[in-house]
Amino acid sequence: MAKDKKLVEAITSMDVDFAQWYTDVVKKAGLIDYSSVKGCMVIKPAGYAIWENIQKELDRRFKETGVENVYMPMFIPEGLLQKEKDHVEGFAPEVAWVTHGGLNPLQERMCVRPTSETLFCDFYANDIQSYRDLPKCYNQWCSVVRWEKETRPFLRSREFLWQEGHTAHASAEEAEERTLQMLHLYADFCEEVLAMPVVRGKKTDKEKFAGAEATYTIEALMHDGKALQSGTSHNFGDGFAKAFGIQYTDKDNKLQYVHQTSWGMTTRLIGAIIMVHGDDSGLVLPPEIAPTQVMVIPIQQHKEGVLDKAEEIKDALKHAGIRVKMDDSEKSPGWKFSEQEMRGIPIRVELGPKDIAAGKCVLVRRDTREKTECSLKEAATVAAELLKTIQRDMFERAKEHQKSHITEVTSYDAFKEAVEHKPGFIRAMWCGDVECENKIKEETTATSRCMPLEDSQPVSDVCVCCGKPAHKLVYWGKAY
Amino acid sequence: MAKDKKLVEAITSMDVDFAQWYTDVVKKAGLIDYSSVKGCMVIKPAGYAIWENIQKELDRRFKETGVENVYMPMFIPEGLLQKEKDHVEGFAPEVAWVTHGGLNPLQERMCVRPTSETLFCDFYANDIQSYRDLPKCYNQWCSVVRWEKETRPFLRSREFLWQEGHTAHASAEEAEERTLQMLHLYADFCEEVLAMPVVRGKKTDKEKFAGAEATYTIEALMHDGKALQSGTSHNFGDGFAKAFGIQYTDKDNKLQYVHQTSWGMTTRLIGAIIMVHGDDSGLVLPPEIAPTQVMVIPIQQHKEGVLDKAEEIKDALKHAGIRVKMDDSEKSPGWKFSEQEMRGIPIRVELGPKDIAAGKCVLVRRDTREKTECSLKEAATVAAELLKTIQRDMFERAKEHQKSHITEVTSYDAFKEAVEHKPGFIRAMWCGDVECENKIKEETTATSRCMPLEDSQPVSDVCVCCGKPAHKLVYWGKAY
Repeated sequence: MAKDKKLVEAITSMDVDFAQWYTDVVKKAGLIDYSSVKGCMVIKPAGYAIWENIQKELDRRFKETGVENVYMPMFIPEGLLQKEKDHVEGFAPEVAWVTHGGLNPLQERMCVRPTSETLFCDFYANDIQSYRDLPKCYNQWCSVVRWEKETRPFLRSREFLWQEGHTAHASAEEAEERTLQMLHLYADFCEEVLAMPVVRGKKTDKEKFAGAEATYTIEALMHDGKALQSGTSHNFGDGFAKAFGIQYTDKDNKLQYVHQTSWGMTTRLIGAIIMVHGDDSGLVLPPEIAPTQVMVIPIQQHKEGVLDKAEEIKDALKHAGIRVKMDDSEKSPGWKFSEQEMRGIPIRVELGPKDIAAGKCVLVRRDTREKTECSLKEAATVAAELLKTIQRDMFERAKEHQKSHITEVTSYDAFKEAVEHKPGFIRAMWCGDVECENKIKEETTATSRCMPLEDSQPVSDVCVCCGKPAHKLVYWGKAY
Repeated sequence: MAKDKKLVEAITSMDVDFAQWYTDVVKKAGLIDYSSVKGCMVIKPAGYAIWENIQKELDRRFKETGVENVYMPMFIPEGLLQKEKDHVEGFAPEVAWVTHGGLNPLQERMCVRPTSETLFCDFYANDIQSYRDLPKCYNQWCSVVRWEKETRPFLRSREFLWQEGHTAHASAEEAEERTLQMLHLYADFCEEVLAMPVVRGKKTDKEKFAGAEATYTIEALMHDGKALQSGTSHNFGDGFAKAFGIQYTDKDNKLQYVHQTSWGMTTRLIGAIIMVHGDDSGLVLPPEIAPTQVMVIPIQQHKEGVLDKAEEIKDALKHAGIRVKMDDSEKSPGWKFSEQEMRGIPIRVELGPKDIAAGKCVLVRRDTREKTECSLKEAATVAAELLKTIQRDMFERAKEHQKSHITEVTSYDAFKEAVEHKPGFIRAMWCGDVECENKIKEETTATSRCMPLEDSQPVSDVCVCCGKPAHKLVYWGKAY
């Protein structure tokens, strides 16, 4: 049992040091490893398998709305990056520059894409001619590079994986519709698949994407009360179209500029899953996204018939459409339990000679540790049902946590008090002036997360910072 | 009908100019577009959908053999690239160098990965400790960069998409076994899914991968008689392990070096599909890989009931598991036929008022243009069967083409004659001396493609070049 203890002891308790707990989990659950490339990580099989499930489900949902996948070059010539003024100002300070190809210096240096608006625009300028070519709803799955100074696995790294959708439309209305459609698609995905409640909202001008007319966001609340921006959807209006000359002839044969959107989700979501659902024993994965949903762990596996019966249960679960594995390694059962818990596998099935003699097995939930006994025959049905229950319960618990971590304030003192002592979202009014936003950020470290779409009940009629008349309700908070 | 003609006329005949025919097809079938980034291409929806199908099927086959997916950084610090001598010599002249991150010069420049052996080795050196950690069978799907001077869509571009598998094993035997297992997996995939016969063989030392002990290859024959290396599998022995210090303690507690392999397939396969199966009307896709397998094209679609019936047929085919679309755009039927042919969709279903009145529809094969009439009720069954037939026939035709393009020669004059006038593989003996290989390449432009694994019948007992005793049978040819 010495080994079992070692595995568990290696995790710092989240109440002692949340940041260290997070780092321990990503390492001990086998999600990532650090690499020799500073600020970049190696995504290991357990981490990548989560990303594959995210990709598969998001991609399916994208395609249902008519999105098609493409692939653009990973390099952006400097001249192309500079075409849209706000965009280049936002990204130029944090890109990696390629200056040599083979043994020769390049005539024009190129950056590794931090995002691909400029490449899509350059492509659309040639590809779109007529209203018949619209809308274009393209997406790509790729990696991007942003030269961050401080990095943390999944949350902020110099290279990360993501998808970036880029659409072009004939009208402003259609672009706004697509922007919101993708925001809600993201939110539904987080809530239904990742069991992670989110606040859907609009960013203030200060927080919007470089070059966008409007940025919408989904904000999730982590276990420590900090917010995590989990997906964004941007409406560019015709700003990029004008900078890149993307025009089409309409039905009346007149030249018009297209209206564009872009939207993205990243491997950051894996960080969100960890920080919303994890506990002091490690990762807790929602069944919908878990690469392995059930681990069958035989007890006293050397006794006759145990492995056979465990295999039988595994096959029955697999047949019922459950992603199941069996751990028949030489490790002790206690060690196997710790590993299954560390890796966040939603259910383990314990099965020993006594259970088999009684025609039973024990199902243990990862999220609550609750044990359910059931007959061997019913194991697959019970497990399938239990996975649904776990998924639902995990969402409800996270929703409850979110609800209980929203503090409404009407004074600046109360605001500062809340930032200090009440982790979570702060619900407060704002006059709309960027000065107040800047002041709040400087003095409290809280930032405006979003102006929520589904909560418009004003807290008061004056700005929490300057006291002037205010109509905008904002969710504020410390953020990752 | 003017427009229909325009679409078809835009393709150069393959007999007139094969290279131009190829370029026309990739553009007109909507597979790629050129980009502002020299030597890099935009993979458009029709091209990327083929890649997605390749990925899906290869990935499934990989995982069946125990392979797990991971993701490594896209950058390689210069010092890491230099650790294995042959490897750096092979790749350094053709990499892109990143010298600045954000506004600052890097302390050590990094290249964008041309392949990731060095990154996997660096990772394995820490990750592998004991024989219990072996084997490691990791793979990644990503893009890589090689600064090519001459580029052609899919065949050779500065950035391309691929998968690269990297495995580590306890013994030399196990590494060799995995190397060959992946070679055969690649070959079976090409033959079963892409309907593309390949020659499985071993590369000569001159042609092997930089740093490998042995390189195995599958070589396919294009319609013009040139060979295309379509997948490679390398056995590294313990060379990289020694350079990177990848050691494990065996069961007797002794330190041992691991034995490694790597293997890759790329978007080049799309080029192969085009050049093996395409014709003067455009792309011809094997049903197994075709994103759309059947296009339903209504005739006189404005007449009552036509669109409804076409929709009904589409639903019936979809229900039968066929990837089907309907073209109900405003274009003329002739234009739609040309487009379906250009895009290589294996079957089109023609359906007009007369057909409907007779309770029939017409199925037209893309590969042979053969028409099959069948009752509307049977359409799905007949189409499903026809897709299988097309897949089989396409393979058989390609196999026949390959067989009829192998020339056996015993003299150097006959060799030169064959290179000049008999496009295809040249089957000839080789003494094993690199001098002869170099001479043949310089004087004839033909290169040694491989020493075939499944064809060991000697042609003669002397080298085709120098006349000295020879035991190695080699397939030679011009290649892409």
